[in-house]
Amino acid sequence: MVPRLVLRSPVWLFRWQVACTRGASVQQRTWAGASRTPGPDSTLACTGGPSTSLGTPEVMLTCERYSVKRLPFSVVSEQDLAAFERIVPGRVVTDPAELEAANVDWLRTVRGCSQVLLRPRTAEEVSHILRYCHGRNLAVNPQGGNTGMVGGSVPVFDEIILSTALMNQVIGFHSVSGCILEELSRYVEDRDFIMPLDLGAKGSCHIGGNVATNAGGLRFLRYGSLRGTVLGLEVVLADGTVLDCLTSLRKDNTGYDLKQLFIGSEGTLGVITAVSILCPPRPRAVNVAFLGGSGVRLRSGLTRSLLAPSCVCLRPCALAGCPGFPEVLQTFSTCKGMLGEILSAYEFMDAECMQLVGHHLRLTSPVQESPFYVLIETSGSGVAHDAEKLSSFLERVLGCGLVTDGTVATDHSKVKMLWALRERISEALSRDGYVYKYDISLPVERLYDLVTELRTRLGPQAKHVVGYGHLGDGNLHLNVTAEAFSSSLLGALEPYVYEWTAGQRGSISAEHGLGFKKRGVLGYSKPPEALNLMQQLKALLDPKGILNPYKTLPAQS
Amino acid sequence: MVPRLVLRSPVWLFRWQVACTRGASVQQRTWAGASRTPGPDSTLACTGGPSTSLGTPEVMLTCERYSVKRLPFSVVSEQDLAAFERIVPGRVVTDPAELEAANVDWLRTVRGCSQVLLRPRTAEEVSHILRYCHGRNLAVNPQGGNTGMVGGSVPVFDEIILSTALMNQVIGFHSVSGCILEELSRYVEDRDFIMPLDLGAKGSCHIGGNVATNAGGLRFLRYGSLRGTVLGLEVVLADGTVLDCLTSLRKDNTGYDLKQLFIGSEGTLGVITAVSILCPPRPRAVNVAFLGGSGVRLRSGLTRSLLAPSCVCLRPCALAGCPGFPEVLQTFSTCKGMLGEILSAYEFMDAECMQLVGHHLRLTSPVQESPFYVLIETSGSGVAHDAEKLSSFLERVLGCGLVTDGTVATDHSKVKMLWALRERISEALSRDGYVYKYDISLPVERLYDLVTELRTRLGPQAKHVVGYGHLGDGNLHLNVTAEAFSSSLLGALEPYVYEWTAGQRGSISAEHGLGFKKRGVLGYSKPPEALNLMQQLKALLDPKGILNPYKTLPAQS
Repeated sequence: MVPRLVLRSPVWLFRWQVACTRGASVQQRTWAGASRTPGPDSTLACTGGPSTSLGTPEVMLTCERYSVKRLPFSVVSEQDLAAFERIVPGRVVTDPAELEAANVDWLRTVRGCSQVLLRPRTAEEVSHILRYCHGRNLAVNPQGGNTGMVGGSVPVFDEIILSTALMNQVIGFHSVSGCILEELSRYVEDRDFIMPLDLGAKGSCHIGGNVATNAGGLRFLRYGSLRGTVLGLEVVLADGTVLDCLTSLRKDNTGYDLKQLFIGSEGTLGVITAVSILCPPRPRAVNVAFLGGSGVRLRSGLTRSLLAPSCVCLRPCALAGCPGFPEVLQTFSTCKGMLGEILSAYEFMDAECMQLVGHHLRLTSPVQESPFYVLIETSGSGVAHDAEKLSSFLERVLGCGLVTDGTVATDHSKVKMLWALRERISEALSRDGYVYKYDISLPVERLYDLVTELRTRLGPQAKHVVGYGHLGDGNLHLNVTAEAFSSSLLGALEPYVYEWTAGQRGSISAEHGLGFKKRGVLGYSKPPEALNLMQQLKALLDPKGILNPYKTLPAQS
Repeated sequence: MVPRLVLRSPVWLFRWQVACTRGASVQQRTWAGASRTPGPDSTLACTGGPSTSLGTPEVMLTCERYSVKRLPFSVVSEQDLAAFERIVPGRVVTDPAELEAANVDWLRTVRGCSQVLLRPRTAEEVSHILRYCHGRNLAVNPQGGNTGMVGGSVPVFDEIILSTALMNQVIGFHSVSGCILEELSRYVEDRDFIMPLDLGAKGSCHIGGNVATNAGGLRFLRYGSLRGTVLGLEVVLADGTVLDCLTSLRKDNTGYDLKQLFIGSEGTLGVITAVSILCPPRPRAVNVAFLGGSGVRLRSGLTRSLLAPSCVCLRPCALAGCPGFPEVLQTFSTCKGMLGEILSAYEFMDAECMQLVGHHLRLTSPVQESPFYVLIETSGSGVAHDAEKLSSFLERVLGCGLVTDGTVATDHSKVKMLWALRERISEALSRDGYVYKYDISLPVERLYDLVTELRTRLGPQAKHVVGYGHLGDGNLHLNVTAEAFSSSLLGALEPYVYEWTAGQRGSISAEHGLGFKKRGVLGYSKPPEALNLMQQLKALLDPKGILNPYKTLPAQS
């Protein structure tokens, strides 16, 4: 009597791989071909230009670049390898070439020297591994897609890499071939749902890493945090205990919500081995747009007929140029008021971002050159209604000069093309040189001030200082590129950026987490009482400190 | 340049009172007039009928009805009272008449015997009080609106009642006169936002209690859990430490999300003293409906013109009668598909509920008698679009017989009238006699099966067995009334209800929490490993166990 899919859903259970990272592009594997031992002239700089960007510059060992001391964990012995072979037969990787990709982050800025990578398939295997490591005092680095931004997903020294790449079964549904976010998205979309998150790194990041790092991304504005959409988790604790909180209920107020401890803890409190996540219904299927295969440029004076009810498909998006940041903000206010509940993304990027994706990736902007660009996406259930709302909105903002030029994409491939301009900025930056990355939450009115202040402060020391990000969430991605890593540039950036952010009561890590690189600056966003309680939680859940050591929390003196 | 209200918001900071409760009606104070010491013939039954329901039957002491032993906390001395008087001068309540209302829950089922109630105004005062109690080993019961369903908000023995009723300032805005949820709602609505939650108890529950118990309520379907909408908390820990996590940022991934520990922990891990919460924009203001001052009855054959775009205001709601539970489910599927993102509530109630609100509260149903009723609310940004969607939906469900009769309310007072039918069920039940209350999450297909099975099982032992609740969230409120409390009826209900629920992998407390009454049955929804970790967290945060003892976690043997 009752359509099963709708009623059984929107809850899906995924068994997959844990990670503590996110944020890469599908280029990752291509880039990970450097030899294992850095040569003496290792510079760490990507030399820029598309033609040379796929070269394999050496990456310095993390322990050589950063001031960090190995903790007194045991060293993996032949006996340990034999024990692992008994737990996960045929899935103990010690081949240096295979280990290379797992020891270096995709940004090519940090490098561990792990000698062994394990590939468990089940929570029971993870439990056996951790019980063993706990007993032997061996440190463990959980790893999913290795797409993190802050060095959280690769070892700092010789930690055992616990890869979850083979934990990719969908529980209770037909099997799927992997739990890469993009594959999961396709899987649920085939069943008329969507994943509640979407990231630039979707081609390689893992859902487990997304949860372990509380990833934000492109749909946050509409579907909110993973803290609300993750319904249940299965987690293996440091001593091997399997904690089954894998409910798929929408509501459950029975005791403390333990799963929240592990969401966003970056693999330092437990290894997430299964996730149950709430998937919103897929926006309604539609007819092909009258606007045809290409984006249609809109200018002031656009009439409503251009976007008549019958002519726009669902999840259309628009790219528009704004003459200044105040106009970006006013366009956002107008947008929230006029698009309301169908608004699903409001992203911005500055002119330098557009130049970089053009230069390094040969992507071309379909709108006139502007100081700022905004990308707006809607998703709703009423094709005609959504089109009418978007049309009225665009008329308004073009009419009053908030936007000087714009394009709407309704065809799937054009929608992808517009999104690529925004999603591939990170990749373009990596090709520009060494990248200093900051991911900051700020009051939205002050979001861009830091970018302009830094340009003045750094002058010619920096190649580019760019700002882009999830404006709708108050989240700025501030990136500075240089030919190579330089301590003096770093000194000009830090602690200046953190102090500026703290002065605004902002967050020094909006969505990227702390990982290895930012753990020392947690104090800019959290008071000593909070740090103290975090250390107590770590000590309670992982008393020997074997889980992802040197990450998230500051080193204890 | 930028409209401040829109950009500064949607984040609001509230300083208010903590609590660990929710779910009452504004009748609470009227009912709380019983004398302090239960007489020998205390029966605990409300004798039913409106004419007698405001009488003051005695409520037995919790420690007499339930098997519970006082833990070895200190007893409040004259010296303690003098110390409290120094901390909160003039706000130390020891008058028995004033203590009465705070010692008994609004359902009149549990009673403590606290001799003192404190009314701090600031987090600093809360901190001083807790530091003192921690040193003296005095137990503390945080209390907000005292509107809980599971005995979590009143003392079990002589715990000090820490009332947060005077902590009601809105931070950074003009002062408001209280932090009752309903008052906050009015406050933010005046500023064009709404609170992301709404409860039947809104007239007396406190926002602090809502957060401390992770309240669900009527807008959960649309705006999700408080775990997603609460942005920051200030909490005073058991030893008096003030933990400032009162950020108002949408995104903040700096370390473990400590505030999640306190959301839903029912006052057992810390006392929440301030909340920052994300408020969605208020659905657009509108013109008065053509449908006039009264709800308009809809029958099969309704034409679209009845709900023409210009004639319906925002947040219209509809009440409809369904011939059976399968039709309730199919109507829900249809509703989700056709109303999509504007659907903000889908509630159901059975015929017995309607009879009870009619009998005890003299509320009359505007639709024909039916086995089931559903109440549907929409809220969106496009007046005409929303009306058109609702109209198409109603045409569809009436046309195919899923719904046999319905009414739409668009006028504010009629909307309130329809909501009262649903929101006041709990009050009607209390007037019907002693109420056995269960609040269960289940797979939606099986949601009503437990109600029909119980009717058969209990036979004439029960006065009424009713089912209603938040169908859209898979949340059933199952209530059984009897003339008086009876151990044999309790024996027929428990553990049967819990075992049945566990058999479906449901939750034995969807939104009411565990409080005092359900703490012993946590194990039906959580495995031993989870219980163990919860106990460890309690021991870490409150090593002396002084915060809301005898609540949430099972007694330790």
